[in-house]
Amino acid sequence: MGSSIKDRVAIVGCGCAKFGDRIDATYDDLVVEAAQAALSDAGIERDRIEACWIGTYSPGAQYGKSGTSLADPLRLYGKPITRVENYCATGTDAVRQAVFALAAGVYDVALVVGAEKMKDRPARGLALEGRHPILGRGATAPGQFALAANRYMHTFGVPRETLAKVAVKNHANGAKNPLAHMQVEVTEAQVLKAPIIAWPFGLYDCCPTTDGAAAVVLARTEVANAIRSGAPRVQGVGLAVTSGRPFHDPNFDYLGFPATRNAAAEAYDMAGIKNPAREIDFAEVHDCFTWTEITNYEDLRFCEKGRGRTLIEEGRSALTGDKPINPSGGLKSFGHPIGASGVRMVCEVAQQLRGESGARQVKRARQGLAHNVGGPGAVGCVIVLGAAS
Amino acid sequence: MGSSIKDRVAIVGCGCAKFGDRIDATYDDLVVEAAQAALSDAGIERDRIEACWIGTYSPGAQYGKSGTSLADPLRLYGKPITRVENYCATGTDAVRQAVFALAAGVYDVALVVGAEKMKDRPARGLALEGRHPILGRGATAPGQFALAANRYMHTFGVPRETLAKVAVKNHANGAKNPLAHMQVEVTEAQVLKAPIIAWPFGLYDCCPTTDGAAAVVLARTEVANAIRSGAPRVQGVGLAVTSGRPFHDPNFDYLGFPATRNAAAEAYDMAGIKNPAREIDFAEVHDCFTWTEITNYEDLRFCEKGRGRTLIEEGRSALTGDKPINPSGGLKSFGHPIGASGVRMVCEVAQQLRGESGARQVKRARQGLAHNVGGPGAVGCVIVLGAAS
Repeated sequence: MGSSIKDRVAIVGCGCAKFGDRIDATYDDLVVEAAQAALSDAGIERDRIEACWIGTYSPGAQYGKSGTSLADPLRLYGKPITRVENYCATGTDAVRQAVFALAAGVYDVALVVGAEKMKDRPARGLALEGRHPILGRGATAPGQFALAANRYMHTFGVPRETLAKVAVKNHANGAKNPLAHMQVEVTEAQVLKAPIIAWPFGLYDCCPTTDGAAAVVLARTEVANAIRSGAPRVQGVGLAVTSGRPFHDPNFDYLGFPATRNAAAEAYDMAGIKNPAREIDFAEVHDCFTWTEITNYEDLRFCEKGRGRTLIEEGRSALTGDKPINPSGGLKSFGHPIGASGVRMVCEVAQQLRGESGARQVKRARQGLAHNVGGPGAVGCVIVLGAAS
Repeated sequence: MGSSIKDRVAIVGCGCAKFGDRIDATYDDLVVEAAQAALSDAGIERDRIEACWIGTYSPGAQYGKSGTSLADPLRLYGKPITRVENYCATGTDAVRQAVFALAAGVYDVALVVGAEKMKDRPARGLALEGRHPILGRGATAPGQFALAANRYMHTFGVPRETLAKVAVKNHANGAKNPLAHMQVEVTEAQVLKAPIIAWPFGLYDCCPTTDGAAAVVLARTEVANAIRSGAPRVQGVGLAVTSGRPFHDPNFDYLGFPATRNAAAEAYDMAGIKNPAREIDFAEVHDCFTWTEITNYEDLRFCEKGRGRTLIEEGRSALTGDKPINPSGGLKSFGHPIGASGVRMVCEVAQQLRGESGARQVKRARQGLAHNVGGPGAVGCVIVLGAAS
């Protein structure tokens, strides 16, 4: 391994579109909404951007795939724009690529946009992705994650009530967030009584289907101060990929995701973090289902495997707890427009580190992370950010 | 702009699958064939690889998208693997991402694989991509490039005979290459008499439809010498994206591609190249159609705009000329499995720089480049390599 990237790149601007059923907006409109917000937050003009990355699972259907999915909405022509796709970790991995290019000193200022239009049903794209060529149409995300959740609950004696508390917490946070898709509190009784999607997941255990986009402007730390003061810094980035069929792996224990554990190990190593339970103050983690958040606590080493329930049951992961998780409201409130999610989470972490999250501000925000785990638990990505020193 | 990446990364291994109608091989088989060849060429084991990039336009249909398209064929689990897609520049841009990560010092050794199965027709994937949502099914690649070729030929008074000479040259080179799809020489008369696909392009003016994969192992220059001696070095990388509808742009002159010109400018700037006509000894350029190669000569600044015909008419771009272009046989002989092409071209340039191209070896090989231009001329990417000093 070579030298660390720690502190070499800063997040100088964050922008997030309104997430929701955006029947009023095209894919391109969402990209513009997020990118303009990020540029405005950074206080720079579009022509300061030297290179871009677009994280998108199913690109804008209007004009095609590739970097043009970003060039055309922004009319940003003649510059380098790369499309990255990595299942549900698409957004965080797009940020990771930009961090590498900036840390190498190739560019001073870069833009990363994550975007997805999930409510539309074009003849190509996401509508086709549910049809797994081998497992068939039954292998939906709720069905696959439910297999692991059932095993986990059986092994550690965790009841559905514990999962429901994750929904209650994240919806409470999301109710404070004007950009969330669902801005509504729910009670534990409502979560438990909701129609079952795939046992043990009821409707409120699952994140909604949503349109959205988010953007960050990154700069080399040497030039970041000239753009804005107090810009949070990238401390470490980690990515790991396992089999596209982890549920078929005889070594898979159905209790958590090796992709998250490996990605976290890489990011913590770069960041110089030995004890994440103590050194990570708060996190945006991938709560595609309520159970996923609980196993993430463990895979991210905030606690021992099987002890995740204590963080939610004792209120420690609440906004007012000692380890706030998903202060934004999480995927539970924002939905999961695939490429958009990771970039949105990086935005939330950066905003919290700047102390500008208003009613959602966590008390101690010196170091936080954004985390995705995606596909059938096959891809994990972790981005650790620290407050400006 | 920050510091240059020049000389910080080396190509320590190259591998190329047999290109062709690979009905005998799955997508995964092609990935393995290319990656094993590259690892074998580098003389290292798979576990030396710290990070990977997979360049693929339509990932392996068997197990899904994302980094798993590479993890599963190679059974390379728990490591960072990113999927890059950027139209026909997918392969070269995947190499570009790896160069950034290595130049940043994050990894010492990385693997990049480009792969595409074009002859298969799964229910999803490439078969759907021909159907442009706005322009309709008539907007095929030959049809779009023909619009520009006609304008170019009218403007500069270039006859079909000049285009045909590109096919003759590249097929002559490909006939010497055991990995090419088409290993057959053609005469100018055969090219001119072939059935017309989209005027002025006859059958032999178009590259074939092909399955293929290619791979490169890259290492930071500091560690490259411990892996092998004489490894070529990356001198510069450039990428540029224009509109996904460049043919609708009122400023488009139909005489060449701004994406190529901008990508070349960025790569030459990093490499410190002022006069590419003199400093670039040879090149693998994107000859999806015969005319494209001629306009590439100009967009890559090997000659003035409108003068590209002289390079082919005077035999200067032949294997025995002073500026050999597409010594491999080009897309004309190899076809264009989208993600595979750029990586294959980087392999050819590296092998030439090592002086190991046998019957296809160019005389002077100190500095060369690989170039893609793709989609409807919307994306250009250039990778400049230099021989070990």
